[in-house]
Amino acid sequence: MSVENKVGTYHFVAEPFHVDFTGRLTMGVLGNQLLNAAGFHATERGFGIARLNEEEHTWVLSRLAIELDEMPYQYEPFSIDTWVENVYRLFTDRNFAILNKDGKTLGYARSVWAMISTVTRKPADLMALHDGCIADYICDRPCPIEKPSRIKVKSTEPVATLVVKYSDIDINGHFNSVRYIEHILDIFPLEMFREKCVRRFEIAYMAESYFGETLAFYMDQEAGTDSYDIEVRKESGEAVCRSKVTFGN
Amino acid sequence: MSVENKVGTYHFVAEPFHVDFTGRLTMGVLGNQLLNAAGFHATERGFGIARLNEEEHTWVLSRLAIELDEMPYQYEPFSIDTWVENVYRLFTDRNFAILNKDGKTLGYARSVWAMISTVTRKPADLMALHDGCIADYICDRPCPIEKPSRIKVKSTEPVATLVVKYSDIDINGHFNSVRYIEHILDIFPLEMFREKCVRRFEIAYMAESYFGETLAFYMDQEAGTDSYDIEVRKESGEAVCRSKVTFGN
Repeated sequence: MSVENKVGTYHFVAEPFHVDFTGRLTMGVLGNQLLNAAGFHATERGFGIARLNEEEHTWVLSRLAIELDEMPYQYEPFSIDTWVENVYRLFTDRNFAILNKDGKTLGYARSVWAMISTVTRKPADLMALHDGCIADYICDRPCPIEKPSRIKVKSTEPVATLVVKYSDIDINGHFNSVRYIEHILDIFPLEMFREKCVRRFEIAYMAESYFGETLAFYMDQEAGTDSYDIEVRKESGEAVCRSKVTFGN
Repeated sequence: MSVENKVGTYHFVAEPFHVDFTGRLTMGVLGNQLLNAAGFHATERGFGIARLNEEEHTWVLSRLAIELDEMPYQYEPFSIDTWVENVYRLFTDRNFAILNKDGKTLGYARSVWAMISTVTRKPADLMALHDGCIADYICDRPCPIEKPSRIKVKSTEPVATLVVKYSDIDINGHFNSVRYIEHILDIFPLEMFREKCVRRFEIAYMAESYFGETLAFYMDQEAGTDSYDIEVRKESGEAVCRSKVTFGN
């Protein structure tokens, strides 16, 4: 199979209600479009969520890291290329490139996915899926950004809290993966976004959270940098997700 | 000009992160797609926001009313028809029909828009825009739902408050029109959405709000009905928007 057949390309536009006050696409919307691209690519190759659901399995996003030089501006078309980098027994790595309308690369993203049984909610063996044919799509196109890192947060004083609302939850009744991105960026003062841009955004999903739960956001700034480590915890102290946000000029 | 040339039709899909826990498209996302359809239709006819901005004018959404029998389900394609019903000196009425993939009408929407000067922020005369040619697009296709109503809220005890965050504001630095829809529906307990559906959603935009402002939500239930009148107020008491939400089975 040629590289061309292994890479899917999907086209989008930066819609007016999907840009922030600087006119640039929001990280939450970009995250959503990356996940849409992943869904299209997997569906076209026979391992999309709908087909998996029929077989009592589903995909679970474990980690996402996005690194960009520039976000598309309001009304600008952009495209997302996506491909499978690796398939392990319990995880698969899917990468992305984000391109502007002229084909210039704006940035890259990496994601890590697990497959779980919808019956037992336990991880399932990816090599057992359709006789391991997912591995046929492994592609060696480079993705020149760092892999998702290990994030640790020591802070014991929350910088923000929220109660999970109707708009936050997805079809599974869980906190929507994209909403976390929005809520995490909402921690920062507006000046951060006025003076700088988010150059790298990482998120690791650890546990599900549900309607009505109170979530607290804890944050450590990495000394001497514009990098922030964030952990979202339930009242019990359980971590639901961790994120690293790096601002740049 | 035939009715066909006056009506624009735009195609969408209910994306996985755009549906609620029941698997149905959220009202906020539908509102966003209605506004996108309005933008496409106006742009194709020479009175889109980009063109108006060059002439130091812009569109301001004043009211929106949406009434539906059913929301598209996750992954379902749907389409939006839109047309101009009336043009007055200071307002224009734009209507919408929402159709499923088989062309069955799921519901309708009505919107009221003003044009303002981007210099003075004052209302501008629609008949003076391109020699009044916007009136050439007036179309008598029926829109069999009630016009937006007058909403009054007497309550003096807020049911919710929020501080305007980074994710809430649009390219103009104002609270994003679509976000209001989400925040208003977040007032209601999850049981409302489990047992009933939003059959009609109305919103009237009165004033702009900005990053860091505290907004309070006041609500009256109409006696003996599942209709709720909501007013969002600044700390000064100024109303920024009013909404009427009607649930049904």
